[in-house]
Amino acid sequence: MRFATVADFEAALSSLPHADEAAIAAARARQAQLTKPAGSLGRLEDIAVFFAGWQGREKPVLDRASAVVFAGNHGVTARGISAFPGEVTAQMVANFETGGAAINALSRAAGLDLRVVPLDLDQPTADFTAAPAMSEEECLAALSAGAGMVESGLDLFVPGEMGIGNTTSAAALCARSFGGAAAEWVGPGTGIDSAAMARKAEVIETALAHHAKAPHSAFETLRRLGGREIAAMAGAVLHARLLHVPVLLDGFIACAAIAPLAASNPAITDHCLAGHCSAEPGHVRLLEHLRLEPLLRLGMRLGEGSGAAVAAQIVRSALAAHGQMATFAEAGVSGAA
Amino acid sequence: MRFATVADFEAALSSLPHADEAAIAAARARQAQLTKPAGSLGRLEDIAVFFAGWQGREKPVLDRASAVVFAGNHGVTARGISAFPGEVTAQMVANFETGGAAINALSRAAGLDLRVVPLDLDQPTADFTAAPAMSEEECLAALSAGAGMVESGLDLFVPGEMGIGNTTSAAALCARSFGGAAAEWVGPGTGIDSAAMARKAEVIETALAHHAKAPHSAFETLRRLGGREIAAMAGAVLHARLLHVPVLLDGFIACAAIAPLAASNPAITDHCLAGHCSAEPGHVRLLEHLRLEPLLRLGMRLGEGSGAAVAAQIVRSALAAHGQMATFAEAGVSGAA
Repeated sequence: MRFATVADFEAALSSLPHADEAAIAAARARQAQLTKPAGSLGRLEDIAVFFAGWQGREKPVLDRASAVVFAGNHGVTARGISAFPGEVTAQMVANFETGGAAINALSRAAGLDLRVVPLDLDQPTADFTAAPAMSEEECLAALSAGAGMVESGLDLFVPGEMGIGNTTSAAALCARSFGGAAAEWVGPGTGIDSAAMARKAEVIETALAHHAKAPHSAFETLRRLGGREIAAMAGAVLHARLLHVPVLLDGFIACAAIAPLAASNPAITDHCLAGHCSAEPGHVRLLEHLRLEPLLRLGMRLGEGSGAAVAAQIVRSALAAHGQMATFAEAGVSGAA
Repeated sequence: MRFATVADFEAALSSLPHADEAAIAAARARQAQLTKPAGSLGRLEDIAVFFAGWQGREKPVLDRASAVVFAGNHGVTARGISAFPGEVTAQMVANFETGGAAINALSRAAGLDLRVVPLDLDQPTADFTAAPAMSEEECLAALSAGAGMVESGLDLFVPGEMGIGNTTSAAALCARSFGGAAAEWVGPGTGIDSAAMARKAEVIETALAHHAKAPHSAFETLRRLGGREIAAMAGAVLHARLLHVPVLLDGFIACAAIAPLAASNPAITDHCLAGHCSAEPGHVRLLEHLRLEPLLRLGMRLGEGSGAAVAAQIVRSALAAHGQMATFAEAGVSGAA
């Protein structure tokens, strides 16, 4: 899939398909017959029903589960907002490709097929305090690069990211999409101190002011304040929806990528589960705006798709219980009095 | 291992071995070198260090992970405290043995070797509102049955349980071990209404009053208010400690099994992680008394070891990241500025 024009993107976002209600009803009916007190598997039951709805089958599976790490570089790093130098993005891409990063280990553990997509790392986006981060063509290309990584028939898609400086971009996207001062969306990222966090908030306020009069459409917000890896995740999540592929979201940056889309059409999160709640403070607030309740709260704040990859294990457990348990009738177990 | 006498049990509980500090230090040093910002894997890092300490190696593994469901019947069911009839315990044991229960599916998903140990199901414990649930010999036999299921060299042990009526026993154990009115420890169990919950609290108050003047030792509390499956879990957790086998605890009943031990020696939980926080309301309070922070909060309330089996997936992810990630030096990645 390719978003050739801005109108293509906007048309997709405004006509989102729905889950399969018949499959949801069948999965709910099955849950009621399994050998356990009603409701006693808690969110595992909800997860199974959610996957049934998007996969369109009573017993959803996790045979073809894909994670993709999109990587991009950010011109705003020139403003000194990260603890790590910009070269680390490319170094980490090499680490992903040789299998040494957290997401490699976590994807293997969860049975996710992992791919890495570096996006023009030698061409950082423009410093968005003074110009749009991307041209229309660049943003469409990034959206399309993301969309192209989601194939029909996938059982699960996990969008991940790597990009030194991208919590700054994420905080800017959140503030413009949902309001609030920059300081309310800013956190330590990979590990900056409170003085550096104050500078980071100032940088974001400068950017918000610079772009204040531009149209607040999802596309314009993404291209002005986003980054290539962020637009790619947005394109992937949107294309996944068109294909009825359920998505497990990672942390602050992955969720911020769909903030502009959600501000335009809140239903964009209907095919998404929040894998975890990041230690990055803006993520709690962002999840509330996206109306998502995270599966895990483990204090992670790495990105790469790592928290979602851990949460994929919970999905695996949920689908195993749903698909493999015996019913009361099959097992000859008495029901509640 | 066998607890032949009460003194054997008390001697074990009063001289608990410690974790391997050298392995903990080595694991912490390794974490500091892995290709991620320091601390960014949150609790996954703590889990890896915890397992390093109890397995006594810098890179802990999960090759031999065991779950055991202990099953027992409770005389107190005659007092009408459960939504399900007592026959269901044996019916569910059959379901475990043919692989159709939640714990079967969840153990398979998590790579746990599952065994089932029915304990004299045709001989329910005595109704503890009027007599000790077990004789000394019966309680020692149950403790030993549990201890016997934990072998040296296990990488992880998960104690699970099945026993219609056992949330009543668990609430009584908690109230006697940590104080508080019965009503503060009582919940819906497999699904009773509020009138039935009030009756359940009355039954527990009657039991607490009946045994009030008996010695409050861990052993006496277990044998008077526990059940065979509960004493077996206590014996298993204690033996695991002697063997340095880390334990992942399940919900309210599994944790209540060690409440009397923790009241006597709080260090009993040092080799334990809390897999999840149950929807059974007493569990939150109990975890605070045990000084354990649960890994998961998914609204589960099934027992069987099911919540711990899901949490074992988190352990698997944590150990995969810890063991498989490259260091900054190995990957040629720049550190923080």
